Amino acid sequence: MSTKPSSQPPILSLEQIAAAHERIAPRIHRTPVLQSATIDALCGAKIFFKCENLQKTGSFKIRGATNAIFSLSEREASHGIVTHSSGNHGAAVACAAGWRGVPAWIVMPKNAPIIKCQAVEAYGGKITFCEPKVSARNEAGARIQAETGAVMIHPYDDDRVIVGQATAAKELLEEVGELDTMLAPVSGGGLLSGTTLSARYMQPKAKIFGCEPAKADDAFRSLQSGTLQAMESSDTIADGLRASLAARTFAILQKHLSGIFLVTEEEIITAMKLIWERMKVITEPSSAIALAPLMKPETIDAISAGLAGGRKPRIGIILSGGNVDLHELPFR
Amino acid sequence: MSTKPSSQPPILSLEQIAAAHERIAPRIHRTPVLQSATIDALCGAKIFFKCENLQKTGSFKIRGATNAIFSLSEREASHGIVTHSSGNHGAAVACAAGWRGVPAWIVMPKNAPIIKCQAVEAYGGKITFCEPKVSARNEAGARIQAETGAVMIHPYDDDRVIVGQATAAKELLEEVGELDTMLAPVSGGGLLSGTTLSARYMQPKAKIFGCEPAKADDAFRSLQSGTLQAMESSDTIADGLRASLAARTFAILQKHLSGIFLVTEEEIITAMKLIWERMKVITEPSSAIALAPLMKPETIDAISAGLAGGRKPRIGIILSGGNVDLHELPFR
Repeated sequence: MSTKPSSQPPILSLEQIAAAHERIAPRIHRTPVLQSATIDALCGAKIFFKCENLQKTGSFKIRGATNAIFSLSEREASHGIVTHSSGNHGAAVACAAGWRGVPAWIVMPKNAPIIKCQAVEAYGGKITFCEPKVSARNEAGARIQAETGAVMIHPYDDDRVIVGQATAAKELLEEVGELDTMLAPVSGGGLLSGTTLSARYMQPKAKIFGCEPAKADDAFRSLQSGTLQAMESSDTIADGLRASLAARTFAILQKHLSGIFLVTEEEIITAMKLIWERMKVITEPSSAIALAPLMKPETIDAISAGLAGGRKPRIGIILSGGNVDLHELPFR
Repeated sequence: MSTKPSSQPPILSLEQIAAAHERIAPRIHRTPVLQSATIDALCGAKIFFKCENLQKTGSFKIRGATNAIFSLSEREASHGIVTHSSGNHGAAVACAAGWRGVPAWIVMPKNAPIIKCQAVEAYGGKITFCEPKVSARNEAGARIQAETGAVMIHPYDDDRVIVGQATAAKELLEEVGELDTMLAPVSGGGLLSGTTLSARYMQPKAKIFGCEPAKADDAFRSLQSGTLQAMESSDTIADGLRASLAARTFAILQKHLSGIFLVTEEEIITAMKLIWERMKVITEPSSAIALAPLMKPETIDAISAGLAGGRKPRIGIILSGGNVDLHELPFR
């Protein structure tokens, strides 16, 4: 199944990203940028990890959710927020709605990880479970909207969310200076779109790549084919990367992305274990995926081509989240 | 068994701590200070976690080892370094000796955790295994010294090591401003001595507490009785906290420490799980122990007594290390 994007989205400006950053900065963590000499030596690069896994609610999703919810007028916000999410965006919306003092309804697929459901509830979100299908999800969301008057905050098909997610790359670029390349995971494309936009304005020479499970390769196929490819479902271990691009994020990525690396399940787990063992930070599979391509010499060779004096490439990675069930680790 | 401290150590000065900091800062990480709104709410305090688990070699031990090894003259260092360690200090000495370009011999007990042995080897250290007894350890160290001419860098009974470890608390106090209390684990007392010294110079009103496994309570007993208590062995899960104070660290703690909290094995595991789940950083049991006392209301009540206007106490914790076998986690 494929569809043409319905319309070109408006270009989001640096001013919009900066305004989002100002709006959310007092409420979120300025997450640390970590480095590992061991991983640098292993990969033959200088890698800067922007640790959004250490962010409030355990992922970057709080950036977009907070920006969207605090962009609403009093009247708009007064009936609460509704969204659908398999996990991290749901927790982020529940948390940010709580800060705003309004209720949050979260539609989640029945197969969402238990710890992600528990997180939504811990932040005060009201969960409605649905079948793990796009149609069921949309129906449940529409019904709640009709019943409550709540505002829908889509996980990624929303400009306020995209500029919010863009602030992670903005902070990274402000902190570490010039980068040759940045990598981020891609699912619905909110984080990756935001990352390409911040790079475009702040360091236009930097090449931005997405990292996607080979088992959920719809974004790769969309960009290859030039038409938006949907994906019915995937059982990739990267449970946060099972969504598909929206027209809005597809258009931004078509314009600004350098490419997508497909990653196997085994490569995701290997990268995850390396990050846990060497960097001592907890990353979920959907997040660790962004290191995996750099563990292959051919990726580094490609990134390094054309660098002056054979210097090692400077690479930024957005470690997107750390919400993982400690009782269900893939390495034993 | 108990012995009187053989002599009062010279008071270590703020200048010595500052000189150590200047010496090691270009070689180590400036580790982040993290906070968790959830843990703050749970404990009823404002807690600042100094993340030495994210330090090079995975623990604060690189501070003291680097300071000691880079304090040596060319001639002193030329025959290499020898030490004994059950883990993190060994890896730190191997790493810092590598930076200095000299060999490192590490005497380790036969029952040291495998991942800690692997880390020593990965940093190029040469391991000699011995029986897990003080006498066997000292004999092996002396033999290697005699054979090689290497310099002994004791894990904690060494002023250069203590002022090196003091730099963790120095960075924390510089970064977060006034604290009411700081907590750190205690084993041989190097980190805790250094922490009390930095606090004494920088924030003399702050009260400093040690945290010790009830199953390895020699420091507690030493301070209670006023005489140095030895401990033959312990099987506490906090494998980094099985050593006993030296005369040097005992004397500093007698003078400057406010007290020691004893922590059960179960409390250590509960605190460790809370840190992993909520803060997304990997902490070893020997490190997580420092949060455990704050999970009891009576500890917070005691710390809060006398604070103006019933405000919540501001508490610093040194998260000392993150070297844990991911295949042997205590929570399942």
